[in-house]
Amino acid sequence: MTPARTLDREEPSYFGAGPALLPTDVLQQAAYDLLSYEGDAIGIGEISHRSKPATAVIDETKKNLKTLLNVPDNYEIFFLQGGGTGGFSAIVYNMMAHYAKKTGKKGKAAYAVTGAWSAKAFEEAQRLGFDAYAVANTKKDNYGDIPPYSEWGPIQEDTAYLWVCDNETVNGNEFSDIPGPEYLPQDVPLIADTSSNILSKRVDVSKYGAIMAGAQKNIGIAGLTIYIVRKDLLDQASDAELRKLDVALSPIAWSFPLVIKNNSAYNTIPLFTCEILKLVTRKLIAEGGIEEIEKINERKAKILYGALESQASFYKLPVFNQNARSRMNVVFKTPSEELDAQFVKEADAKGLKGLKGHRSVGGIRASIYNAVSLQSVEQLADFVVAFAKANS
Amino acid sequence: MTPARTLDREEPSYFGAGPALLPTDVLQQAAYDLLSYEGDAIGIGEISHRSKPATAVIDETKKNLKTLLNVPDNYEIFFLQGGGTGGFSAIVYNMMAHYAKKTGKKGKAAYAVTGAWSAKAFEEAQRLGFDAYAVANTKKDNYGDIPPYSEWGPIQEDTAYLWVCDNETVNGNEFSDIPGPEYLPQDVPLIADTSSNILSKRVDVSKYGAIMAGAQKNIGIAGLTIYIVRKDLLDQASDAELRKLDVALSPIAWSFPLVIKNNSAYNTIPLFTCEILKLVTRKLIAEGGIEEIEKINERKAKILYGALESQASFYKLPVFNQNARSRMNVVFKTPSEELDAQFVKEADAKGLKGLKGHRSVGGIRASIYNAVSLQSVEQLADFVVAFAKANS
Repeated sequence: MTPARTLDREEPSYFGAGPALLPTDVLQQAAYDLLSYEGDAIGIGEISHRSKPATAVIDETKKNLKTLLNVPDNYEIFFLQGGGTGGFSAIVYNMMAHYAKKTGKKGKAAYAVTGAWSAKAFEEAQRLGFDAYAVANTKKDNYGDIPPYSEWGPIQEDTAYLWVCDNETVNGNEFSDIPGPEYLPQDVPLIADTSSNILSKRVDVSKYGAIMAGAQKNIGIAGLTIYIVRKDLLDQASDAELRKLDVALSPIAWSFPLVIKNNSAYNTIPLFTCEILKLVTRKLIAEGGIEEIEKINERKAKILYGALESQASFYKLPVFNQNARSRMNVVFKTPSEELDAQFVKEADAKGLKGLKGHRSVGGIRASIYNAVSLQSVEQLADFVVAFAKANS
Repeated sequence: MTPARTLDREEPSYFGAGPALLPTDVLQQAAYDLLSYEGDAIGIGEISHRSKPATAVIDETKKNLKTLLNVPDNYEIFFLQGGGTGGFSAIVYNMMAHYAKKTGKKGKAAYAVTGAWSAKAFEEAQRLGFDAYAVANTKKDNYGDIPPYSEWGPIQEDTAYLWVCDNETVNGNEFSDIPGPEYLPQDVPLIADTSSNILSKRVDVSKYGAIMAGAQKNIGIAGLTIYIVRKDLLDQASDAELRKLDVALSPIAWSFPLVIKNNSAYNTIPLFTCEILKLVTRKLIAEGGIEEIEKINERKAKILYGALESQASFYKLPVFNQNARSRMNVVFKTPSEELDAQFVKEADAKGLKGLKGHRSVGGIRASIYNAVSLQSVEQLADFVVAFAKANS
């Protein structure tokens, strides 16, 4: 195909699970910034990561996230490379270094395994030699439910943190209620992987010890991971103490205290990626903040699930508990794999793209992140109904 | 400043050390790709990292690197997040896992400490609990020389690899001759950090076990690190064996075999960053390959060092051994800090930008990477002479 020579585009209807659709005006501004940043002779990807304009980009992105998520003052916001998968490792290293400082002991790590991503995070903690255990594991139900935490196994002594994945992109489930004090002891921080639903809804940050999210769903392109961590959890045992306790050390690039001390530029931050985060968060604030986007997201999910439920004899939803259904990743199946493939193909021909389910799950997945318009979802909902009627 | 609304720009004369200047036509194409990739409805940052076009971008980038550097078939090329600093950790983890497989033992790591970056790599290996030692350390000379390897300390038994930093960005020195078989036992692979001089000159890849390079100097924007690793070094002991030997495991996102198995998309590769690498390497091939760019780089360095040497009573070059002077990062000082600052200020006013020395070294640093034109260097050389004459 010939490469395009314009920054204009028709508004796409794209439902990919990530990397995902971004607002066209954000991409246009970012494209200009790539050549010349704020009237400077060079672009945002070419300037020093410690220059004044770079610091201003990092600082505004942090400030916008603080505003949007109403982050309390006793939290630090910072950025790492490595994606969610890097975060699986970075969190366990850093939280165990804190636990060692607090108690002089090697801690354990608790995981609620409610889908493919929390399963991977759990596996990584074990692989790195930490004592990790699952308080819940819904694999036998194909992750079709998130059982209430009152039914989870107990938090063991010496537990350094509890990990949840707030929204499971592959399986299409999402927490409607996070573990509260009647389950979780006050000194055990809750850590949430919010890679696929950050900025999609209001969140009470004060209930978490840390929130981690890859950028490439609701906030930007791939290459940066966002961390919001309560300050007291950043107090860590020394390297020598950790070696004595046989606690694996974080690679230096992921050492939370060091990264924070250097305002996320200990090593070279992908500044262009951060510029996109800045523009996306700035736009969200201008459009009324999280309250507004949450309302639209609720409406989008209601329309799409409504269409699927209206054809309940045709479509099957693997997440059988309605309360656990994701408002970001709507996973469903037709009566056969052939019809699944036909659905994806016919939808694509109508301009409704990126609907193929994850290779491990099959079926159809419509990811309706912030940048997917109400109009796109309405078109998809109409197609959902029409396809069922035509093929029943 | 008002954000620009054009993709045109005057060719900048920018000498920053990294992130660094990139070719304008590459940035323009990348800007279009951001909105719409190859005529598709969505941009390169929005498509799935496992889609066909994504795989094509990754594959072409690998192929271009293979062509440009004449990489033998028994090497793998792949990409990680984490920058050079991530590489300091990733290399030691992975090379020790190989050494454990090969020998059943925990290996040692040898480092030639010839500047700020090799010092950091050495420090990281020790910090992570590995037995690392320095065969050379020129800190007492402020890294003003790279002594011949015939004068280095011996390679100890059980050494898993020897690390060199081929070009030290901060200090401005560069290897003219890498350790050969008369120094380095054949079974000890040479690992080179080439972050600031990759693609600037011909390299005999077959002499290295592995080459690592952050992208943000000669090849692209920050966010990807390039690895070229000899295939036999990818054979690693199992996690269980490593735990038994007390060898620290790599975080999963940096496990070389796993990343290779997934064609650099085990976790979400920053595809837009890879697209820029693709466009830069494609352009280099079209312009005659490494031989051509090496000639231009030699000429640029000769012009600039020539101008400095023509005013030898005014300028001081911290790298006193001419043979060890970097062709990428030209570090120099005027007779006083005040004049250094005046030099940077006056040059900036003439459109010669990004010349301030690294905060740890001071003085002036002109980074003349591939994208810095001969014309820019000639202008700088003229200014170097004029400034000395005006201020002597």
